[in-house]
Amino acid sequence: MSIAPIARRDGRPTLAVVGATGAVGTVMLEILSTRADVWGDIRLIASPRSAGKRLTVRGEELEVVALSPEAFDGVDVAMFDVPDEVSAEWAPVAAAKGAVAVDNSGAFRMDPDVPLVVPEVNAAAAAQRPKGIISNPNCTTLSMIVALGALHEAYTLQELVVASYQAASGAGQPGIDALREQMAKVSGDASLGTVAGDVRRAVGDPGPFPAPLAYNVVPWAGSLKDGGWSSEELKVRNESRKILGLPDLKVSATCVRVPVITTHSLAVHAVFATEVEQERAQHVLAQAPGVVLVDDPANHEFPTPADVVGTDPTWVGRVRRSLDDPRALELFLCGDNLRKGAALNTAQIAEVVAAELNPPR
Amino acid sequence: MSIAPIARRDGRPTLAVVGATGAVGTVMLEILSTRADVWGDIRLIASPRSAGKRLTVRGEELEVVALSPEAFDGVDVAMFDVPDEVSAEWAPVAAAKGAVAVDNSGAFRMDPDVPLVVPEVNAAAAAQRPKGIISNPNCTTLSMIVALGALHEAYTLQELVVASYQAASGAGQPGIDALREQMAKVSGDASLGTVAGDVRRAVGDPGPFPAPLAYNVVPWAGSLKDGGWSSEELKVRNESRKILGLPDLKVSATCVRVPVITTHSLAVHAVFATEVEQERAQHVLAQAPGVVLVDDPANHEFPTPADVVGTDPTWVGRVRRSLDDPRALELFLCGDNLRKGAALNTAQIAEVVAAELNPPR
Repeated sequence: MSIAPIARRDGRPTLAVVGATGAVGTVMLEILSTRADVWGDIRLIASPRSAGKRLTVRGEELEVVALSPEAFDGVDVAMFDVPDEVSAEWAPVAAAKGAVAVDNSGAFRMDPDVPLVVPEVNAAAAAQRPKGIISNPNCTTLSMIVALGALHEAYTLQELVVASYQAASGAGQPGIDALREQMAKVSGDASLGTVAGDVRRAVGDPGPFPAPLAYNVVPWAGSLKDGGWSSEELKVRNESRKILGLPDLKVSATCVRVPVITTHSLAVHAVFATEVEQERAQHVLAQAPGVVLVDDPANHEFPTPADVVGTDPTWVGRVRRSLDDPRALELFLCGDNLRKGAALNTAQIAEVVAAELNPPR
Repeated sequence: MSIAPIARRDGRPTLAVVGATGAVGTVMLEILSTRADVWGDIRLIASPRSAGKRLTVRGEELEVVALSPEAFDGVDVAMFDVPDEVSAEWAPVAAAKGAVAVDNSGAFRMDPDVPLVVPEVNAAAAAQRPKGIISNPNCTTLSMIVALGALHEAYTLQELVVASYQAASGAGQPGIDALREQMAKVSGDASLGTVAGDVRRAVGDPGPFPAPLAYNVVPWAGSLKDGGWSSEELKVRNESRKILGLPDLKVSATCVRVPVITTHSLAVHAVFATEVEQERAQHVLAQAPGVVLVDDPANHEFPTPADVVGTDPTWVGRVRRSLDDPRALELFLCGDNLRKGAALNTAQIAEVVAAELNPPR
């Protein structure tokens, strides 16, 4: 176990990573190891079950400590990558201990006293946090909102129609494991996928999904809400409105799971207050921080999850002006749901707070 | 080789199936063997390469004959399940021989002198065929249009925003083969799908697709048209307008290929002239011929391609009234792209013509 040079810690804020051993936590440790290092001590926190595990971050091996009020002693910023109910209980504990809690769960996102922050879009909102808690948006919203924020600034957004192509890892490590198992079960049989129910029989228990995902797409993510909406679809609507500061934005989403390990994709129909133009929209996207434009279909250049996974930006392609509405654009977007969709954006929010706590001299 | 009972042929029209050995042709022979039999002789026609093959239809083994003008002698209805250029050349030949050509290619769909027919929606249009040719719509349009036609009748359609989840078999047998090969290549490696490009390297040549389809989705189908649109996206717009008789219908589509063998799915945002109501829309769909409503998300009941493949109807679920527009519905639809999306609708059109040529006494 190496010891980090003391100079690095001098005067810099202490960070806690709660949920360090989970799917998003694992990506978080990679991200902390590669980004410009603004942190002093880093403390890894997880359930008592995982306490004592040793994980590497910034080249240092650290021991995971059990979640407890004392674990937040001396912590300046605490990132939470844990289920809603764990965040609901423990983020206020961290805040009461004087830490700024940056929460990646759904527990506080719609709380009017908790800002919902995407640094490229609304970094300033992070400073208004009466509860000491800042929320990180849902992965589906995050996979599109940086690009839409840039277009909103250029054209003023009025309406979104969204169809998602969501990866298995949106359901965590159990989602990844289930898809891999299903793929192994179906890939050897060259007759499957041709008769109703044959894939369902071959797959058996579909794991965390309500239907098999291999050789299939499943129009469901989350829990059932009024009017037949899924919780995931309402998150896309409510969180987009809050992040963009557009409480009356019209949003209709249909969220669909697809057999991809990681990286969410979205087909978006975006209607603006003013007329749009394909080339200028492409230019706006190409110039936007955190966005990469890949839009040359003549050469088969467009984003796909397999090409985007493991990368940080929001990738956009297939930019078209609607043929029947000069104020509307069609887009296809991809974003790694574990990185920008979760760990990366949480790290970026935490860095905004770190800069505020310890401004560069 | 059995001989069909002569009684069956008495007075009934003669049918030719051109492209009998292809992916759609194969499904066509199954369909002809199971539907109410309105045909006298059936003649199987294919390229000279396939001539002499013996295929079974209606329990009879028939020999495939080579495509030639003489092959249409005595034919009343000729169904074409062949590439555009073959239809463009040979459907007029069949028509000149006195047959009614029912063409499943894209060659004539937008010809103002060729009706584009979906029997549940516009059966009467089949009678107006100055060229002796009737077109069958594209599989993507067909996977949604029966349900949308029923809703249009109830509410008057004004706008569609469509995102597709299209199966590999939309690219024919080479598409099916490519997806199966790709699945076999990626399913054994539990690290794949986590780093940009790893799936691309494992898959190698993606076959008829512009990028790998296993562990991926690909926002492209067809050829490049003006404004960055794909031909498939324009077909959805132009064919929907023609079938519904709504030349000004606003349509925006984004077409995406997914790793499903057969059955296209679509997320549709449909805006109407009048206010809609979830329960009434569900009732309209449940009553519509050719449509099955499966819409009970509390019990995980919604259509998925794995449950729909091999069946005839258009399956609809996830029916929701838009939260921000009382005139808009959100829907998720599935249809077998080789059956209703191709062979079945062609057979249904041919049956409409057969009833006209040989009305029931």
